Order: sequence, then structure tokens, then C-alpha cells
Amino acid sequence: MRVVDLIERKRDGGSLEPDEIDFLVQGYVKGTTPDYQIAALLMAIVLRGMTAPETAALTASMVASGQRLDLTRFGRVVDKHSTGGVGDKTTLVVAPLVAACGLPVAKMSGRGLGFSGGTLDKLESIAGYRVDLTTEEFLAQLERIGIVVTGQTKDLAPADGLIYALRDATGTVPSIPLIASSIMSKKIAGGAHAVVLDVKVGSGAFMKDRRMATALARAMVSIGKAHRIAVVCELTDMEQPLGRTVGNALEVAEAIMTLRGDGPTDLTELALVAAAEMLVLGRRAKTKTDGRRLAERALRDGAGLAKLRELVAAQGGDVAMVDGPVRLPRAPRVEAIGAPRTAYVAALDAAEIGIASVRLGAGREKKGDPIDVRTGIVLHAKIGDRVERGQPVADVHVAGKPGDAAAIEQIRGAFRWSARRVPRRRLFLGRIASR
Amino acid sequence: MRVVDLIERKRDGGSLEPDEIDFLVQGYVKGTTPDYQIAALLMAIVLRGMTAPETAALTASMVASGQRLDLTRFGRVVDKHSTGGVGDKTTLVVAPLVAACGLPVAKMSGRGLGFSGGTLDKLESIAGYRVDLTTEEFLAQLERIGIVVTGQTKDLAPADGLIYALRDATGTVPSIPLIASSIMSKKIAGGAHAVVLDVKVGSGAFMKDRRMATALARAMVSIGKAHRIAVVCELTDMEQPLGRTVGNALEVAEAIMTLRGDGPTDLTELALVAAAEMLVLGRRAKTKTDGRRLAERALRDGAGLAKLRELVAAQGGDVAMVDGPVRLPRAPRVEAIGAPRTAYVAALDAAEIGIASVRLGAGREKKGDPIDVRTGIVLHAKIGDRVERGQPVADVHVAGKPGDAAAIEQIRGAFRWSARRVPRRRLFLGRIASR
Repeated sequence: MRVVDLIERKRDGGSLEPDEIDFLVQGYVKGTTPDYQIAALLMAIVLRGMTAPETAALTASMVASGQRLDLTRFGRVVDKHSTGGVGDKTTLVVAPLVAACGLPVAKMSGRGLGFSGGTLDKLESIAGYRVDLTTEEFLAQLERIGIVVTGQTKDLAPADGLIYALRDATGTVPSIPLIASSIMSKKIAGGAHAVVLDVKVGSGAFMKDRRMATALARAMVSIGKAHRIAVVCELTDMEQPLGRTVGNALEVAEAIMTLRGDGPTDLTELALVAAAEMLVLGRRAKTKTDGRRLAERALRDGAGLAKLRELVAAQGGDVAMVDGPVRLPRAPRVEAIGAPRTAYVAALDAAEIGIASVRLGAGREKKGDPIDVRTGIVLHAKIGDRVERGQPVADVHVAGKPGDAAAIEQIRGAFRWSARRVPRRRLFLGRIASR
Repeated sequence: MRVVDLIERKRDGGSLEPDEIDFLVQGYVKGTTPDYQIAALLMAIVLRGMTAPETAALTASMVASGQRLDLTRFGRVVDKHSTGGVGDKTTLVVAPLVAACGLPVAKMSGRGLGFSGGTLDKLESIAGYRVDLTTEEFLAQLERIGIVVTGQTKDLAPADGLIYALRDATGTVPSIPLIASSIMSKKIAGGAHAVVLDVKVGSGAFMKDRRMATALARAMVSIGKAHRIAVVCELTDMEQPLGRTVGNALEVAEAIMTLRGDGPTDLTELALVAAAEMLVLGRRAKTKTDGRRLAERALRDGAGLAKLRELVAAQGGDVAMVDGPVRLPRAPRVEAIGAPRTAYVAALDAAEIGIASVRLGAGREKKGDPIDVRTGIVLHAKIGDRVERGQPVADVHVAGKPGDAAAIEQIRGAFRWSARRVPRRRLFLGRIASR
């Protein structure tokens, strides 16, 4: 088998066999196949695509490149993943709710990059919270309290990490089969028996339109099928940020408020729907209605919040910050943005808000950049809301950096106004699931 | 300027500015841009193409990556290049003919790869012939005898060499703009004021059909225009091998016979047409008819052969081999192939013959492989010839290797037969030139 022959076949629109894909992936991990050959192959994949069997085979090879967690002793384990967006703190709400309902949640999360935030960065707003558990600590904690939210260990799907770094450097990120196999390989290696995927659609998401999001969802369901893993994808709106906060500590505070029952409607609704799907997949509920009822009860009776507190305590975090979110790190200054006229919010561009949050220090442009968990944006108005001239529509939490003024202007520009009534945005755009 | 942004633009079908292309090329030569990024870019170019201005800019950057010979003191210098084929020994005939007519010929040639032979390998059949002249030796010899045929020095267009090696390893060879800029950058860096290009078309050529060959010719004419270099492309047939021999020493002998006036019609005709074009471009002749007359005279009166002898002597080769081609290295055994029935030759697949010659040891599968200059094929019948059953149609010169029998069978299979008369193939398929 010659690497060049395989690259040429893909370049010319042909497809590769599972053993050929495995030869390429394992060769890359072992270092026998050089990165320039894989880079050329990846570009050919971006431009020529991959069939469903090829995508499943690529996923299998990435899983086989490392350790695979066996979580069967915990019963059915259901994972949850979001393709990433602006203000998306859903995991911080869903994971405790579901765990409180008795379904173990073993979640490995990532860091933010570009306008897209990351759960690990958010959790690190809580003083002391550790995101680097060893596999032993991970399993012991799951056993003891039924919930873990930590970073991915390097032993799981190492090929995915290597290939992703190469994609990032070679302009080969936007490819449905590559994105789908990257996500699914980590879920499968992490031991999930079923996965609920939140596929974000819109300006603040990687998938800009429903057609692309649908294709990604289908690819992930198809990979799941090949690996006997049930997959449910919810397509949800990301034209405007989710909830009312963007920025790490601000989002943790919002998640806590949501678990207290005082969250914004969209975030609460998304968390309940995702929790219901997880409870059904985890066989804790027969129907989604039953699942939702269980999740609502855990929200109402404080069991979810208690589970978050337990999680934070177990991973070394300061529970006083959960008990009193005012103790979370706070930016030194808050600048208010007022409505320029009495009008309806017609648009609130999630990408613009996301990029502005990076400028404020809440996110990173490239891997490894430091972030400032204190900074961010609180939105007082969202699409469809009517505000009076001068009424505050956003508070910008700034650290006092030179770029702050530009970020504030960008946030101001992310709002577009209409004299006429504007409908609120629908959150749920579609559902694609196994079977 | 970020490399990834440029890769992404090309990936999405956009075009790059000259300064951006130069940034990429010089960064690669300096080693600041890693090969995996260039590999991804090359695959994007293969699949998305390049505009004429991009191709000209790429050529300019490759020329600028190294030394550029200034040959203006020799007057107008005209180069000649073939895109490569099977049995193509035209340079060995044309270069001496043209030099004998008083137009200096400064030719840097390449080695064979795959089914395509290389002038350097052929010349090395002549004991002692040096193909590694320094730039000083090159210029001194050109001054003294008006002809040089040597290998390319590493100082000319080093970017081209680096990029070609990467293309070879990453399945990114077949791209009109990449091929055109590779050829033209070497010609321009070599100091040519005009170039005659023989674009081969057919099974034994890189360009399999006229549409592709025409596109390549147009791309090279366009690059020439941007660099103020006159370019004439002759599209010529490569469905069957050129002339009657394939294999290094055998081809040198055939070239000598041709310079003696005893060559096969197709090779003689191609050499005279190319010589006439060169003499016109070099302003030694007013019209192609005049040029042809000059070249015919140099053939008839032995001036061309004398010039080849002078060339061989100057570069340290054994002139006794030019005087008596029987002294050239000979294979230990010759196997004859007879016609299976009385019939016309309907096809004589150049690619099959070329691949068989590699198996015999006359060519190399990959760069750096050793070759056996003695081996090869002499064809006694070509397309359109009628032969009697059992009449020899090819002699196979073998070294006595295990693969010989398979090569002989492959040569036998390269002939296809017809009971009905078959027209001879047209050699000249088109001409594309500047202005």
C-alpha cells in the first residue's frame, strides 16, 4: 500500500477502504507517514468529501489509535456535546440535572477557540476547579457521585488531536466528514453508549445554515449507527447568543441562576430538552415527556444545583462561588450600552458578539492564548424585544485593556433595530436521530 | 499575511496576489513555512486551479528563488523542451543541428522518471560524458563551441525542485498551472530568450488528450508573455513511441543515425520542425521554410553530426562511440518478438512500451533508482505497417533479469492488430505560439 496512491485516489474523487484509512491514520500517529502527505490528503477530503462508510472507518481508526474507556459497569452512559456557539453554557446546567436524575454523566469537555467558548474555561472561573483528572480519578469520581466534567485525557483518540492540529494549520477544518468523525471519535473513545448532540446553526456557529447542519447531524448519526451508538441531534439556533451572558464567570453565574430556576427561557428550555433526550437514551425515562418531567423536578427541587455543588467540591472548586455567584471573579469595570432609539431588536449577531468577547479577553484567537475569565457581556435585550431609547441593552464587563473601546463598538454594532415588531427566534430548528 | 488564510482562499476557489504567492514560495524555500502547509495548498491548487496571472506570479517567484543566468552576451538564446514521452530522443538531434546553424544552444536537461525517458540518462550511455558542469564550465563551453547539454544546476529555481519533490510525494503532480510554471521557471532561470516546447499528447505522455495538452501549451505561452519570452508549442503524437528505439544507448545510436541522415521519418521530421522553429525564434532564419532549409543542410552535410561529436568531446565523452555507435554499451541478449498473424499494426501503446522499458532496467520507477543504459526495445513495425505472420516486430534488449519475460509479454501486448488497413498516425497535432 502506497500513501501517494491513496492520496491520488481521494484527489480523483474515489473512495478509500477501511484498511487503507487505518493504514494512513496509524501511520500518521506512529510517525511513519509524514504530515505533508496527510495534509494533502486532508485537503483532498475537504474538496472531494468522504462516503458514510469512509467516515465511519476514519472514526474507528481514530478510536483505535488510543485507549477506549469501558464504562459498562456504570450501566448505560449518555454523553452530551455541542458543536459550539456563543454563550453556550448548556453543559453546566444539563449535566447536573441529568446526574441528579440518577443517570451517570461522564463528560470530557474542551476549551474555547475563536468566537466559540469552551466548558473547561468556564469551569475554571471557579477557584480551584480541576480539569485535568487522571483516568483513575475520573472513574472513581463517576462511581462516587455520578458526575464528572473534565478535560479530555491524551490517551483517548490521540489521532484526532494530531489530525485536528494539522487541520487547523492547513485550512482543512471545514469538512463535514472530518468534523463528524472528530466529534464522534472522542465520544466513542470516552465510553459513551449514546450521545445527545446540540448542532448549532447560525452566524455564531460553525455551521452557518441548516443544510450544512443537517448534513453534519446525518453524518454523526451514521457514524453512531456503524458503531452501535444511539445518536440524537438537536439543531438549535445560534444567530444570537444563547441566554443572556457571554464570558466565562458570567456564564457560570447564569448557569447557577438557571439551576436555581431563575434562568433565561432559551437556556432553560434547551437544558430541559437535552436532559429529557439523555434520560430517554439512558433508559431512566420511557418517553421524552417523562424525561422532561424528571428534569423539571430536579430543577425545581434544587437537586440539580446540589449536584453541581457536589461536582465542584469533588473537583477541588470553591463551593462558596456556587452558593453565591457574586463571589465569582468580576471585571473591574462595567460599561453600559444604551438603545440608540425606541425600537425592536431585529438582529443580535452572535459572531460579532463572540468576536467582541475574544477582544475583551474572554476567549482566545489561537490555542494556548491566556484568557480573562472576568470579562464578557450581559445582554438585556434579545431579538424581538422592544426597548426605549437609552434603555440599557448590554453591559460590557471590561478588564481595562486598550481594545475595550473597539469591542464595545462592535457589540453596539451587533444590534440591529427595527421600528416594526420583530418575531422572537425559534430555538429548535430540527431533530435528527438514529433509527 | 497568514499562510492559513491564503490556503483557505485557494481552497474556496479564490485567487492569490503575486506578493502572496511570493510570500508562500520564499517562505517554503527559507524553511519558515512548513511543508505540510505547502502540501495542502498544492492539493487545493490541483483541485481549484490557478488563473493565468497567478501562474505567471508562481513562475516569477520560483525564478526569484535562485540564480538567473544572463546569456545576453550570446545574443538570442533559444531553449527547447519536451514534456516527455517514450523514445523521445529529439534533443540529441535538434540541439546539434541548431548549434551547427550558428545559434547557440544552452540546454539543461533532466533524468527519466516512470515511463518517460530523460536526456541526461541517454547521454550517460556515452562513456565519460559529464552532465554536472558548473555554471562557469557551462558558460565557457557555450562560448567556445556554442552547445552545452548538461543537468540543471541547483542554483536555478531551487523552489521548483523543492516544490516538485513535495508534489511527487503528495499526489499533487497533475495540475496544468503547476506543470507549466515548473517547466517555464527552469527555462527562464536558465536564461532563455525564447523556448520551443514539444507538448506530447497520448498514452505515453503526461497529457493524455489534446484538450489537456492545449491547456498546458496555452498556460506556457501565457507565462512566456508575462515574462517577455517568446514561446512556440508544437503538440505532437505520443500514442506510440517516437522513432524506432526505446532505451538509453539504443536511443543515442538512433539519434546518431538520424544525424547521419538515416533516421526514422517521424524523428527526423520532428527534429527538422523544431530546429526550424528555434532558428526563427533565434533570428537565424526569417521564415520556418528558411529555417528548415538550414537545418536540412546541417543534416545533409554532416555539420550536425560534427557538432554532436564536438559536444561529446567537450563534456568528456568517448567520441569513438559517436563515430561508431556499435561501441555503445550493448545488452547481453536480444529477444525477438514476431507478429502473431499477417496483419496491420493497429496500436502500439506507448505507455505499455514505456513501462516495459522500465522493467527491463532502462528507466526508473522512483527518483535515484539506478538504470541499465544497455536495455530497451527496437521497434520494427509501427502503427499502419503491414507485417507477415512471424515477421519480427520488435527486438528486446535484455540484461537477463527475472522481470525480462514479463516485460517481453508486455511489449507483445502493446501491439494490437487489424486485418484491415490502418492509417499511419499524424505526428503534428497543433501549434500554439506567442502573439
